[in-house]
Amino acid sequence: MAAARAAADPPFKVVEWRGEVPGTLRVLDQRALPREERYLSCETPEQVHEAIRTLAVRGAPAIGVAAGYGVVLGVQAGRAVGEVADYLAGARPTAVNLRWACERMKRAGTEARVLLDEARAIEREDAAMCRRIGEHGAKLIRDGAGVLTHCNAGALATAGIGTAVGAIYEAHAAGRRLRVYADETRPLLQGARLTAWELGRAGVDVTLICDGMAASLMRSGAVDLAIVGADRIARNGDAANKIGTYGVAVLCKEHGIPFYVAAPSSTFDLSIASGAEIPIEERAPEEVSALNGVPSAPDGVKVWNPAFDVTPARLIAAIVTERGVIDRPTEDKILAVFPERRT
Amino acid sequence: MAAARAAADPPFKVVEWRGEVPGTLRVLDQRALPREERYLSCETPEQVHEAIRTLAVRGAPAIGVAAGYGVVLGVQAGRAVGEVADYLAGARPTAVNLRWACERMKRAGTEARVLLDEARAIEREDAAMCRRIGEHGAKLIRDGAGVLTHCNAGALATAGIGTAVGAIYEAHAAGRRLRVYADETRPLLQGARLTAWELGRAGVDVTLICDGMAASLMRSGAVDLAIVGADRIARNGDAANKIGTYGVAVLCKEHGIPFYVAAPSSTFDLSIASGAEIPIEERAPEEVSALNGVPSAPDGVKVWNPAFDVTPARLIAAIVTERGVIDRPTEDKILAVFPERRT
Repeated sequence: MAAARAAADPPFKVVEWRGEVPGTLRVLDQRALPREERYLSCETPEQVHEAIRTLAVRGAPAIGVAAGYGVVLGVQAGRAVGEVADYLAGARPTAVNLRWACERMKRAGTEARVLLDEARAIEREDAAMCRRIGEHGAKLIRDGAGVLTHCNAGALATAGIGTAVGAIYEAHAAGRRLRVYADETRPLLQGARLTAWELGRAGVDVTLICDGMAASLMRSGAVDLAIVGADRIARNGDAANKIGTYGVAVLCKEHGIPFYVAAPSSTFDLSIASGAEIPIEERAPEEVSALNGVPSAPDGVKVWNPAFDVTPARLIAAIVTERGVIDRPTEDKILAVFPERRT
Repeated sequence: MAAARAAADPPFKVVEWRGEVPGTLRVLDQRALPREERYLSCETPEQVHEAIRTLAVRGAPAIGVAAGYGVVLGVQAGRAVGEVADYLAGARPTAVNLRWACERMKRAGTEARVLLDEARAIEREDAAMCRRIGEHGAKLIRDGAGVLTHCNAGALATAGIGTAVGAIYEAHAAGRRLRVYADETRPLLQGARLTAWELGRAGVDVTLICDGMAASLMRSGAVDLAIVGADRIARNGDAANKIGTYGVAVLCKEHGIPFYVAAPSSTFDLSIASGAEIPIEERAPEEVSALNGVPSAPDGVKVWNPAFDVTPARLIAAIVTERGVIDRPTEDKILAVFPERRT
C-alpha cells in the first residue's frame, strides 16, 4: 500500500499569467530578495525583456516560461509572433532554455489564445518535471534528516518547486521533520539570498552557514545527506554546478555522507564523455574582492573566480532525474535512462 | 655547505617605538586595511588601550607588545607602573598574551628606561620566535610551489614576520618563486582584508579565492602545500584554528597535498588530551547574515557561526614550531619537544 502523502506546492509563483487574452504577466522580482517580496506587472514584451536581462527573473527554466508569456503579451497587442519571439530570445544570449522556448512559441501558431495555451504548456511541463524530480528525490530524505544544500536549485529558478530544493519540499510536505543547512555560496550568495529565503518562506527549518563551515557541521554529525542541482552533466556522470559544489562532495566522502545531484534530463549533455570537456566560465574579480560595492581586499589584488566546478561521478551517490534515480552513475546507466538519445 | 640566503624582514612594523624616553608608539591601524595604510601615534596609555580595544592592533603577540610599550608611555609621564599595567591588561579581557605582557612589565622595574628595555625585549623575543618558525617552515616550501593559506597568521598579528605567513616570507626571501593563494576566510574575511594585503605589500605573488574555490584549485594541480596558524593545539596534535581550516585539511588529504600548521610553543595546551576538549566560541549571526552592514539573508534567519574548528592530528603533515618541525604529530612526539612541560 502506498503511503498517503501531500504534494508540495511551490511556496510562491515566480511567473504567473493573470487573466486570459488580454492578460498580464506577474513576475517575482528576485533583485529585491531577500529584503522584500516584490512583484512586477509586465504588460509588454519590453518589460519582460528587461526583467530577464536585469535578473528580476533568473534560472534557466523560469526564464523560458517568462519568455513564452512575453510572446503572448506582444501578440495580444497586435504584433507578429516571430518578431516578438526573436526579440525576447536576445534578452540573455547564452540561456539555452530561453531560445528553446521562443522557437517553440514560433512553431505553435499566430493567435494570442493559441499562444497562451502553448506558454501555459511550457509552464505546466516545467512544474511537472520539478514535481517528479522532487518525488524521486524525497525518497532519499528520511524523517529527522539533516540536509545540506549549496547555491539555489529551488522554486526561484523554475516554474515549479525546483530540483534539489524540490526534493526537500516534497519530503517536508510528506510530513518528515527536516533540518536544512544552506551554504551561503560565495561569491554571489545565492544560498543566503535565495535558498534561505524560499525555504523559510515555505516553513522549512533552515540554517544558514558560510561555505567554510560545512566541514565542521558534517563532523558534528548534523548532516545526513547533501543534495545540489547541476548545470551540465557529462555522459559518465561528472556534474558541473556552482563553484564550491565539488568541495562539498569531497567533504561528504570523508564523512560517509551521501552526496546527491538533482537535475532534469535537459541537463545531461551526452555529447561529452566526461567533465574534463566542460568549459568553466571565469567571472569578474570584483565579485570576490568587493561586497555590496565596498572593497574587502586590496586594490588590484589578483583573484581567481571560476563560476562552476566539476564533481566527478565517483563522488556522486545518485543523480535524481524526472525519469528516476540513477544510483552510482556510470555511462552505461545514464545511457540506459536515455535510450532515445543514443547515437 | 649551507646555502647563502637573505632573511625576510617584516614588510611593515605593526608596532614601533619612536625615540627613547620620552618616546611615542606608532601603531599600524588595521581597521583601515585594506583600503589604506594608516598609522596612529600613541602618546598615552589611554590611546594604546583604545587601539587594542577597537582592533586597530590585533593578534595575540602584537597586542602583548603594544601593551608593553603602553606601560612605558604611562611611566614616562609620571604614573605608577602597576596602575598603568593593570589598566592596559583590561583592554581585551580574554587575550592571554596581553595579561602576560602586563605582568611581565610589572615585574621588570619602575623606571621608564628599564621598562622600555623590557618592552623592547618582549618585541625582540616575539620577532625572533617568528623568525625561527619562518626558517623551519620555509624548508617545507620548494622553488615554484603553490601555497594555500587560510585566515591571517601573518606579520599583522605579531611583532615579526608572522607564523604560517612567516614561512612564506622566509621562502620568498630565499629567492624561491611562489604562488600564494589566500582563502578569503568568511565570515570576517581576514584572508581578503589582511593576508592578501600584507603579502602583496611584501611583493609576494598572491591570488585571492573564496573558501569554496579551494577544492577546485587543488584539483587543478595549483596547490603543492597548505600552511595555516593555530589558536590552540592539544597534547595529541589536534589543532584549533579559524573556521574553515578543517575543511582545507580534508581537501588536502583527498588531493595528496601536505597540510602544515605553524605556531609557537605557547599555542600548545598540554593540559588537554585532544581537540574534543577545546571549546568552540559561537559568534553573532550578523557576521554571516550581513555584509558591510547590508543584509545578505532574510531577516531573522537562523545562523550557525562557530569561530573556530578543530583539525585532527591525523590530517596534519607537520606542526612547525620555533623549536623545529614535528612530523606526523603524536602525543609522544609533542611531549618530546616540550620536556620541561611534562607533568
